[in-house]
Amino acid sequence: MKKIGKQTIEFEHSVNILGSFSIVGPKEGKGNFSEYFDKILDDDLFGQKSYEKAERKMFLTAVLGALKSCNLKTSDIDVLLGGDLMNQIISSNFTARELQSPFLGIFGACSTMVESLIVGASLIDGNCFKNVACFTGSHFSTAEKQFRYPLELGTQRPPTSQWTVTGAGCTILSSVNSDIKIKQATIGKVVDWNVSDLNNMGGAMAPAALETLYTFFEDTKTTPNDYDLILTGDLGKLGSEILRDLMEFRGYKLGTNYGDCGQMIFNKNQKVFQGGSGCGCVASVLNSYVIKRLKQKKAKNAVIVATGALMSTLSSQQGDSIPCIAQLVLLETKNV
Amino acid sequence: MKKIGKQTIEFEHSVNILGSFSIVGPKEGKGNFSEYFDKILDDDLFGQKSYEKAERKMFLTAVLGALKSCNLKTSDIDVLLGGDLMNQIISSNFTARELQSPFLGIFGACSTMVESLIVGASLIDGNCFKNVACFTGSHFSTAEKQFRYPLELGTQRPPTSQWTVTGAGCTILSSVNSDIKIKQATIGKVVDWNVSDLNNMGGAMAPAALETLYTFFEDTKTTPNDYDLILTGDLGKLGSEILRDLMEFRGYKLGTNYGDCGQMIFNKNQKVFQGGSGCGCVASVLNSYVIKRLKQKKAKNAVIVATGALMSTLSSQQGDSIPCIAQLVLLETKNV
Repeated sequence: MKKIGKQTIEFEHSVNILGSFSIVGPKEGKGNFSEYFDKILDDDLFGQKSYEKAERKMFLTAVLGALKSCNLKTSDIDVLLGGDLMNQIISSNFTARELQSPFLGIFGACSTMVESLIVGASLIDGNCFKNVACFTGSHFSTAEKQFRYPLELGTQRPPTSQWTVTGAGCTILSSVNSDIKIKQATIGKVVDWNVSDLNNMGGAMAPAALETLYTFFEDTKTTPNDYDLILTGDLGKLGSEILRDLMEFRGYKLGTNYGDCGQMIFNKNQKVFQGGSGCGCVASVLNSYVIKRLKQKKAKNAVIVATGALMSTLSSQQGDSIPCIAQLVLLETKNV
Repeated sequence: MKKIGKQTIEFEHSVNILGSFSIVGPKEGKGNFSEYFDKILDDDLFGQKSYEKAERKMFLTAVLGALKSCNLKTSDIDVLLGGDLMNQIISSNFTARELQSPFLGIFGACSTMVESLIVGASLIDGNCFKNVACFTGSHFSTAEKQFRYPLELGTQRPPTSQWTVTGAGCTILSSVNSDIKIKQATIGKVVDWNVSDLNNMGGAMAPAALETLYTFFEDTKTTPNDYDLILTGDLGKLGSEILRDLMEFRGYKLGTNYGDCGQMIFNKNQKVFQGGSGCGCVASVLNSYVIKRLKQKKAKNAVIVATGALMSTLSSQQGDSIPCIAQLVLLETKNV
């Protein structure tokens, strides 16, 4: 690894994306990426007795699916890296219990997918591990219950709200050569512009995306035009518009190559206000649409900026604003 | 890095412990390690309006103290690695907000201190980062509130219970040479022997400590006699006795060089039943007693095995047993 500028690292040994898998709920399956997802559930309880158990079954399905996509077995995983939104990241812990591979739990809220790729790529680059499985996800019904209101209450949603994606994704990183590589990463700082509206996560997280994306361009001396695809994780419609404005103010105009997974995942007729959110949003889109675009050489590179809101219900109850973070990776196809 | 055996890695570039700091509450300050701690609080509210805010102030004090101990500034930190027991690891997130360094949040319950050292050592070994700050901690009153009962209820504690340590610790890892190095690490698997008694964490976690410690000895072809100090994080009296039995059954008899931070931190007259627990237990003991023993050449090496119970209140309410994990690092002084 080599440090570039202030917060960016370049992986010097080849860090390859060997396998991937995405699984989503029925609502997400009717959205814009239906043709890209590997598995779409008919029922978001997934045959389980609780939504929490359904969430972890999605995680397990994603990891096993990603392994199968590159003909690996569970015993081929050197390290499992996962996290989620549930208190004490139980979905990931119970998934790791089933897989019986060495496990490192991480937490970055909705930035978890990219955080796991950064840590995983660093481990692969260390020339010690062959295969690392990075996974995360979220479930609408577990997140609503934990962070907002009981589902049965039917609480009205304000126009700035987003819809937590029911979905999970897993990426297998490997030292074994493949067409898609993780080339660079920018590790984010916690950014807090004093937003405390829990129903406007996009607005809260946009400044974190700004800081990380701006730092990435400055560190690498590149501009938005150097990339085929620049995707934020789950800023939603409003949040991604705020990011566009903020970036332009800082001298980097984002073009049509910029999009937000949260804004893109659902279609116009689905009542989700600002779009999707949750760990599963960028996890399912990255491990379907993005990787397939790169594989099919429809894009030669992709900058993925996953944002996370790092509050808890308790910190909000105690009057704190919402601290946010954004983690970034640059994916490249082999023949750039 | 080099992989040894199944789950152990050896850091090939020198990973140095450059600085450290420990801070504890008044009760811990009256225990066995009072002369070793860097700061002992008179009041566990630490001048704050809530115990949660006190917890994060302890974290910040630990990081700033560790930086000061090796004459570094906040701007010298390349990456901050932290986590804690609070839902969504808010104590670490808010600490990272104050420090404004690139941040990766992790979660391993009470294994967090050692997990952060493993990830941090991997990053330093990658020859890219100079200084990484690893921190965690816990607070009796925040943990009781979140995981058990309201403090005001005065609930009776059963004899197998432990007392969550109010304390925090920070270790500065660096590529700059120092007397103490992290030499090896064993990344644990999730172990679950179907214990579901939330008042017997030591019993639940002992099997995880067994699996990681056993794997470490097997991977490195060493025995307990090769080490001056073998410490588990917070198994407490009962849990560490179970570990002794289990290890002997597997062919490795632990001698007087083995101890448990949870059992050791409080003295006999403090009513804590099986001893201390929580992220702050091993964090405060490692960053005081252990590092000072190594610095003073009273021990030439130390194996630290931090265990974590990976359940949440919700997973327990839904009838799940307690999945556990143990992470291990081997510290060595320069002239072994």
